[in-house]
Amino acid sequence: MNISKRISNMQFSPIRKLTPYAENAKKRGVKVYHLNIGQPDIVTPDTFFEAVNGFNETVLKYANSQGVDVLVESFIKYYKEWDINFDTDEIMITNGGSEAIQFTLMAICDVGDEIIIPEPFYTNYNGFSEAAGVNVVPFITKAEDGFHLPAKEVIVSKITDKTRAILVSNPGNPTGVVYTYEEIRMLADIAKEHNLYIIADEVYREFVYDNLKFTSALYMNDILDRVILIDSISKRYSACGARIGLVASKNKELINQILKLCQSRLCCPTIEQLAAANLINTPKSYFDEVKNEYESRRNIMFEGLSNIPGVICKKPTGAFYIMAKLPINDADDFAKWMLTDFSFENKTVMFAPAEGFYASEELGKNEIRLSYCLNCDDLKDSMKILAIALEEYIKLGR
Amino acid sequence: MNISKRISNMQFSPIRKLTPYAENAKKRGVKVYHLNIGQPDIVTPDTFFEAVNGFNETVLKYANSQGVDVLVESFIKYYKEWDINFDTDEIMITNGGSEAIQFTLMAICDVGDEIIIPEPFYTNYNGFSEAAGVNVVPFITKAEDGFHLPAKEVIVSKITDKTRAILVSNPGNPTGVVYTYEEIRMLADIAKEHNLYIIADEVYREFVYDNLKFTSALYMNDILDRVILIDSISKRYSACGARIGLVASKNKELINQILKLCQSRLCCPTIEQLAAANLINTPKSYFDEVKNEYESRRNIMFEGLSNIPGVICKKPTGAFYIMAKLPINDADDFAKWMLTDFSFENKTVMFAPAEGFYASEELGKNEIRLSYCLNCDDLKDSMKILAIALEEYIKLGR
Repeated sequence: MNISKRISNMQFSPIRKLTPYAENAKKRGVKVYHLNIGQPDIVTPDTFFEAVNGFNETVLKYANSQGVDVLVESFIKYYKEWDINFDTDEIMITNGGSEAIQFTLMAICDVGDEIIIPEPFYTNYNGFSEAAGVNVVPFITKAEDGFHLPAKEVIVSKITDKTRAILVSNPGNPTGVVYTYEEIRMLADIAKEHNLYIIADEVYREFVYDNLKFTSALYMNDILDRVILIDSISKRYSACGARIGLVASKNKELINQILKLCQSRLCCPTIEQLAAANLINTPKSYFDEVKNEYESRRNIMFEGLSNIPGVICKKPTGAFYIMAKLPINDADDFAKWMLTDFSFENKTVMFAPAEGFYASEELGKNEIRLSYCLNCDDLKDSMKILAIALEEYIKLGR
Repeated sequence: MNISKRISNMQFSPIRKLTPYAENAKKRGVKVYHLNIGQPDIVTPDTFFEAVNGFNETVLKYANSQGVDVLVESFIKYYKEWDINFDTDEIMITNGGSEAIQFTLMAICDVGDEIIIPEPFYTNYNGFSEAAGVNVVPFITKAEDGFHLPAKEVIVSKITDKTRAILVSNPGNPTGVVYTYEEIRMLADIAKEHNLYIIADEVYREFVYDNLKFTSALYMNDILDRVILIDSISKRYSACGARIGLVASKNKELINQILKLCQSRLCCPTIEQLAAANLINTPKSYFDEVKNEYESRRNIMFEGLSNIPGVICKKPTGAFYIMAKLPINDADDFAKWMLTDFSFENKTVMFAPAEGFYASEELGKNEIRLSYCLNCDDLKDSMKILAIALEEYIKLGR
């Protein structure tokens, strides 16, 4: 029976593919520290659950396709605090940031069109593109540069007559990079000079450390009709399981076209939308506490990695990931080995081999992505275990 | 700024496009009976809300990409009652039946491939196909035949080397047709002889009247690797706003490929999945009561329509829709007129012009789709108002 080429070409999630090995390790009684997935352990605000329990309709009806009014209004209010102004007809609620990316690619690209993305990048950008028949054209950013953008001409050299947009995650997943004002300004100039969109995935906006200032692509007033914002409550409020995101743009015509895709899947879940709308009433202190916690974790993980001989990584300043280069040849093999052959005091560590975050062949083979979504004590223990494992693995000469 | 051809080619929902006129009518104080959308007024079972309120985790985490185990198990149990046997690796939970259709098309079709669908059909089949670059090839079914399938050779004549599947909704939306055993058997033979899938959208399975027996495509044991089941709790349990559906097939390889698409959007909402899993504990009497209620409504609407001079429709036997041919030229104009220019005792009726349910140009222009999702009294009143409106409209000679 026929299986489409587009789905055959898609890869299984590189973040989730090691899960069976982890399950087996657990069955053997080994404790596995999960540094492989961006699933925060931070408590979801009560405001969310209060609204869930407050739902008292007797019929669970469709919501409207754009998203329920109170949720759209709550996002408008949230963005105002970031000096970003949206009208109600500039926002579409989506099933997580995932659907927002999917709909954006479909709305601006036909089959064979191209999107330029700095690599390493969030692995699902690739998946959505394959599904939509869109070609990802990567340009390289390096661990040694803290994954900051290369010179303008490097990016411009990737542009063809099929290029429709530059897609960036800022703060970066998987890199933790926070782009400077100058970097975002450079992207804006390129978009303007070459008639491109900027797809700005800013789901980690609240996670910027070291008192750095976050620069939204929406601060570039001269290209507002070119900026497509991808957002989500998943990380911001530790509500990954709610699947509430949005796509927004000052380009009303584009948003109106995306409404067609929203209508085709009818609506996002009604209760989750109402609950998400109530998150705007979360005390401001929530973000401060969460940010402080992640900053401490980042410090612990970075220090731990820095102390391991041969590991290369620069201190990231945002999101909750660190990309690190290890003194080995095959991070995929190392990751598997840690789950199948290694344990220390009956514990081991799971992380994501970085190969899956690259589109270019042969890149990232000796890199890993770690997320710091565990408490500080567990993180310290994880770093100790990783150091021991790496030493042992290198001795094996695999 | 570039807008893709695929999205430009999509149509706005023909079911939802008259909404602004309805809103205006309501603002003028006119009561609008909504026969335009399949939003049941039936109460959602308590089992659903009990599970929603029973959720007591403090972190709302991602679910696994396939769907939570208890939900998959609950569906397996449900299908057993219909003599359909699924293993756990043959089901993927989706964001409503909508996503199930979308993923199915992507998994079996590349750009330019074709899907054969009897028309009139559920309008979003078209939307999903446009988005996926798949061509819908319709064959006609007629009001005069109760929208039953034509002879085998009519369907076979539509097959080319690009055809991948025949997609049917059974019981039918928008037609209310319930296919006979012989019709499903014929489709199975065609699939076998021409190496095609059958995509069986059976979301209205529970809504079959007049003591007819429902024939699932999964009863055709010789083609089980060719059947892709689309399902959803939306209509079955009046839980449209939950957005929980599934795609299932005995073809394990296909389902495993679809897992990639599921992984790319991470998961379906966690709380809604757990709540949906508890629906299996709904008393059996629920379906009987709901079915009786809809059967009464069907009778009222059908009788009402039959009494209007010049209206052509056969009594449908499933789902909760009736397609009717009216003695006018432009059902779209009539629908709009009823919302803008007409009212009787300060009330009017909203329905879906049928043009949007056809892929072939010029078809359905004098047809409408009515859903009987209102209580019996309101339906009687609606039919009276429709009769008066039609008489008045015809006199206007528009």
